Amino acid sequence: MVEKVNGTTWRQRLDQRQEEYLTQLSELVAIPSVSALPERRADVASAAEWVAARLRQAGVEHVGVHQLGVDSSAVYGDWLHAAGAPTVVVYGHYDVQPAQEEDGWSSPPFTPRVADNRLYGRGASDDKGNMLAPILATEAILATEGTLPINVKFFFEGQEEVGSPDLAAFVAAHQEMLAADFVLAADGSQWSETEPELTLSFRGLCALELTLQGPENDLHSGIYGGTVQNPIHALCSLVASLHDADGRVAVDGFYDDVVEPTPDQRQQFARVPFDEAGHLAATATLALFGEKGWTTHERTWIRPTLEVNGIWGGFQGDGTKTVLPATAHAKITCRLVADQRPAEVVKHIEAHIHKHADPAVTVSIQAEEAAGAPYSVPATHPGIQAAAAVLADSYGRDPYQVGSGGTLPLCGIFLEHLGIYTVPFSFGLDDEGAHGPDEFFRLDNFRRAQLAYGDVLYAIAS
Amino acid sequence: MVEKVNGTTWRQRLDQRQEEYLTQLSELVAIPSVSALPERRADVASAAEWVAARLRQAGVEHVGVHQLGVDSSAVYGDWLHAAGAPTVVVYGHYDVQPAQEEDGWSSPPFTPRVADNRLYGRGASDDKGNMLAPILATEAILATEGTLPINVKFFFEGQEEVGSPDLAAFVAAHQEMLAADFVLAADGSQWSETEPELTLSFRGLCALELTLQGPENDLHSGIYGGTVQNPIHALCSLVASLHDADGRVAVDGFYDDVVEPTPDQRQQFARVPFDEAGHLAATATLALFGEKGWTTHERTWIRPTLEVNGIWGGFQGDGTKTVLPATAHAKITCRLVADQRPAEVVKHIEAHIHKHADPAVTVSIQAEEAAGAPYSVPATHPGIQAAAAVLADSYGRDPYQVGSGGTLPLCGIFLEHLGIYTVPFSFGLDDEGAHGPDEFFRLDNFRRAQLAYGDVLYAIAS
Repeated sequence: MVEKVNGTTWRQRLDQRQEEYLTQLSELVAIPSVSALPERRADVASAAEWVAARLRQAGVEHVGVHQLGVDSSAVYGDWLHAAGAPTVVVYGHYDVQPAQEEDGWSSPPFTPRVADNRLYGRGASDDKGNMLAPILATEAILATEGTLPINVKFFFEGQEEVGSPDLAAFVAAHQEMLAADFVLAADGSQWSETEPELTLSFRGLCALELTLQGPENDLHSGIYGGTVQNPIHALCSLVASLHDADGRVAVDGFYDDVVEPTPDQRQQFARVPFDEAGHLAATATLALFGEKGWTTHERTWIRPTLEVNGIWGGFQGDGTKTVLPATAHAKITCRLVADQRPAEVVKHIEAHIHKHADPAVTVSIQAEEAAGAPYSVPATHPGIQAAAAVLADSYGRDPYQVGSGGTLPLCGIFLEHLGIYTVPFSFGLDDEGAHGPDEFFRLDNFRRAQLAYGDVLYAIAS
Repeated sequence: MVEKVNGTTWRQRLDQRQEEYLTQLSELVAIPSVSALPERRADVASAAEWVAARLRQAGVEHVGVHQLGVDSSAVYGDWLHAAGAPTVVVYGHYDVQPAQEEDGWSSPPFTPRVADNRLYGRGASDDKGNMLAPILATEAILATEGTLPINVKFFFEGQEEVGSPDLAAFVAAHQEMLAADFVLAADGSQWSETEPELTLSFRGLCALELTLQGPENDLHSGIYGGTVQNPIHALCSLVASLHDADGRVAVDGFYDDVVEPTPDQRQQFARVPFDEAGHLAATATLALFGEKGWTTHERTWIRPTLEVNGIWGGFQGDGTKTVLPATAHAKITCRLVADQRPAEVVKHIEAHIHKHADPAVTVSIQAEEAAGAPYSVPATHPGIQAAAAVLADSYGRDPYQVGSGGTLPLCGIFLEHLGIYTVPFSFGLDDEGAHGPDEFFRLDNFRRAQLAYGDVLYAIAS
């Protein structure tokens, strides 16, 4: 229909140019844009320039490299001529994780090579291959149709692999530039080579550190043992009080704002295959574990947790030291789900600790800076509906509706500062070594991503 | 009566020679016999020779310096001509704690000086002043009476301040040489300048280290949090299970062999002043604490404890790391009282841990080598009775019957290998800086010790 101009559709154009695109992706992967290493800052900047040039070449307008924080960058460009149609932000990142051949790579990580229909190299999957796809789709549509079905704002950053510390401030300062109906995140994964997924939630995070002071200094356990409360004992009792026997967090108010899943949502989760043997093998644990009444998927995706990430106090050396220690410490983080608010949860935990702490010790609690609110997008969101339709078409089956146990600060940032949801739409797979050696991207998925991005722009339009 | 020979009693002789004895004690204190420092081994050996010479000069026979372990020494000598009378071992040590002027000393620690009727110098109180007293008393009696009322074996060692690691083997190998009715330990303290004490018990010790293994490696708490038991949580629950709400150890069998005090014993403890404000100040804690139903003295002296001396697991650095750790560890020691047996107590704790540990983690327990059995001597023991009579006479009031919360391996060693009790009979005070700077010995107590040792030999004889 509208897709045909000069006898070539945008799909045909994409298909005809896979070899050229592979060369371009290889060029981008060859830039060692490691954001964690100060000595690689110039390479991150080179990657930004490469992306900006590629956007311009694709026909995107207002392309520029912006300062992000003091020493990083973001690339913005847009095409805004679809009057009356929706506007989306396409998000991705051109920085990569560190990689050295000594880490176990079979070949130099920044010398891309093709084998088995895969492109090997740091960043091939996370996120250079994925973020290039929407640019190529846009170029193909503009070249064949002369117009896009919707308005598109491209926004790529160079800080994702170090936690995007300056992203929130940037988004807050560029609200007009980034205003849109929602975000398509070209960073993420699908369930498998044959099964698509849609990630509808990410957990949030709050963190605190706990110090219990008993005596002012370490004491001799012979002279004082039995007459002074041991802060390790008091700490262990406190930690033990944080969960009940059913694995629920036993802090008053902790679950107050937790959104219970609908029966339909639980049915959706039940559809998602769970590899029990694989889970046990991956964790090298003995049996499934967790909050009673929930499946492992649910425990990971839509139930909050409270974990002690570290504990210490007293003597940790070889042998025996009969000390009654002065202090004991614990670090705690919670994974939060919608609609829990990190600051409220910290308050509930503080209240619990003050209520349950042994009066013989002095408690101090330090709330730590940590990355934000939980995120959840309704399955009925138009962006999700469009993505679902395209994925169903591309894979020949409906996508699994899943959650993520981790935290994607991006989603909370766009929701908070622009009031818009983020729809993950990306084609990596978990086995592609995103943060390990021998990272690769499947070339079939590179092509699939380009076509799916073209399709999703049309799906959003309709 | 028998004390007068040539018109001078042994008491008069001692009194006449205090200046001379002070010079001799200063000579001994000037030898830096620090057993903890390899470079001071020759000085420890010099101190041994000094002690041996002084014993010979006093009229003690069979005096010799014996090898103790590979690099230390013990001095033995005896006077065994009181046929039919009891035999005692007089124990002390000529090694000292390390000391450097920089530690806060007002004058060089091995340059003895007299001020305010005190001799200042490392070892003046612990234990050179105390161990010299029985030698001087023996000399005075032999010089004036020509005989001793009982048989005496002097046994002084050079390893006390490093925990007497070779003492047990030495005693085991010299059972005939050291055979006696009991030991008089010239190492210890009195309650105050005006109040005597008798220490009737020392607590024993057992130790174990506990490791809980959850997943094989640290896990990402976003991906796995809530689905894998956190070994820190499991460890804290275990530690919390080790005590009940009343501060009692909640391990089955833990108290099985604990000897309950008699009403008389509790009355004796109640006589002993307790400085609550001083205790709170010394520990910088907020309120008295401990097992319900017992006084602070009783908690320290006759009640066993279980203390976690150290705990660790997971992330202990700055900031936040959302890790679900693979392992968590705790070090535990128990202070034991008569008739608990360390190996039995360890078995009870192991059983408790295996019973209460979360099945989702793997527990391993390592019993540590630690210093032995609790010790308790009956108040009716003839040595205690003799010591009590002499102390009552010297101070003009009955001694407090106290216990010690610490462990004195010596007592267990003599009881195990020779079947004899140890009677602490010594005249230091707790404020004399035994292990700190500006150690001193009160010259009034130096004299009092000499007279009391003479008296106690007669008291034991009768």
